[in-house]
Amino acid sequence: MKAEHINPFITSLKNAFQTMLNCEARRGKIQLKDGTEPKHEVSGVIGLSGKAVGTVVLSLSTPVALKAASTMLLVEATKVDDDVLDAVGELTNMVSGAAKAELEEFELMVSLPNVVTGKGHEVHFPSNVTPICVLFDTDWGELTLEVGLEPVPEPAAV
Amino acid sequence: MKAEHINPFITSLKNAFQTMLNCEARRGKIQLKDGTEPKHEVSGVIGLSGKAVGTVVLSLSTPVALKAASTMLLVEATKVDDDVLDAVGELTNMVSGAAKAELEEFELMVSLPNVVTGKGHEVHFPSNVTPICVLFDTDWGELTLEVGLEPVPEPAAV
Repeated sequence: MKAEHINPFITSLKNAFQTMLNCEARRGKIQLKDGTEPKHEVSGVIGLSGKAVGTVVLSLSTPVALKAASTMLLVEATKVDDDVLDAVGELTNMVSGAAKAELEEFELMVSLPNVVTGKGHEVHFPSNVTPICVLFDTDWGELTLEVGLEPVPEPAAV
Repeated sequence: MKAEHINPFITSLKNAFQTMLNCEARRGKIQLKDGTEPKHEVSGVIGLSGKAVGTVVLSLSTPVALKAASTMLLVEATKVDDDVLDAVGELTNMVSGAAKAELEEFELMVSLPNVVTGKGHEVHFPSNVTPICVLFDTDWGELTLEVGLEPVPEPAAV
């Protein structure tokens, strides 16, 4: 994955947190995903396809998931229930949707958002893809954004 | 999701196991995913997009993941390492790829396959989608196939 392709995702994450959640997401370290990145408890996962294929993983610590969902649902969420999972999926969808508009050369479409739970879970990418992992801090807690995106080779002209 | 749309995925799973792994996958119960379905340790996840959006989750018990990877890699796999994860991702990709060819009305494209690990992990779908869960048994152990697929509304003519 080219480093420049991560920028639309960083911008859309910051924008989504600012405008929808009224919460500043402060960018920390950017690194290749290599197993040393923080693991959080709730991960939104969405597939991208088009002239590139990829995946966006938005991984939230439980407090961030609960606060984000509470803000979106206008109801205090105290545990990770179906409404919170839907809110995390929708947040992942919004971050991916805004970013794909900035990467129009790839004509990306997004799949359904899924949300993975389970303490210590890990979302692995294919080993021939080098996903980029961006750490964020907020007043609610930590989150990470992971994006792997690989151009699809053009089919040979017929 | 319409019940008839699960059939291409069931067929492609059985074919992939038979032809590539020389292993019979015997279909068991088909149910709506409602939280009562079995949870396995290694889940391949792939996004679908096009005139429908969806996700395919192929969830394998550890023995099935190891035996499948050993057969694909021609090397005995004894733990879930990167090679096994890649094999599970590739298997998920093949099942999805063969099924999408049978669902040509949706012009589906697949995203990257990701593989989720972690004991007790769960892959949730959006609550407005009703994924179908199909249980399989093999001589290596159990697996489940979960597919959620929803048509995208046609945009209004301009």
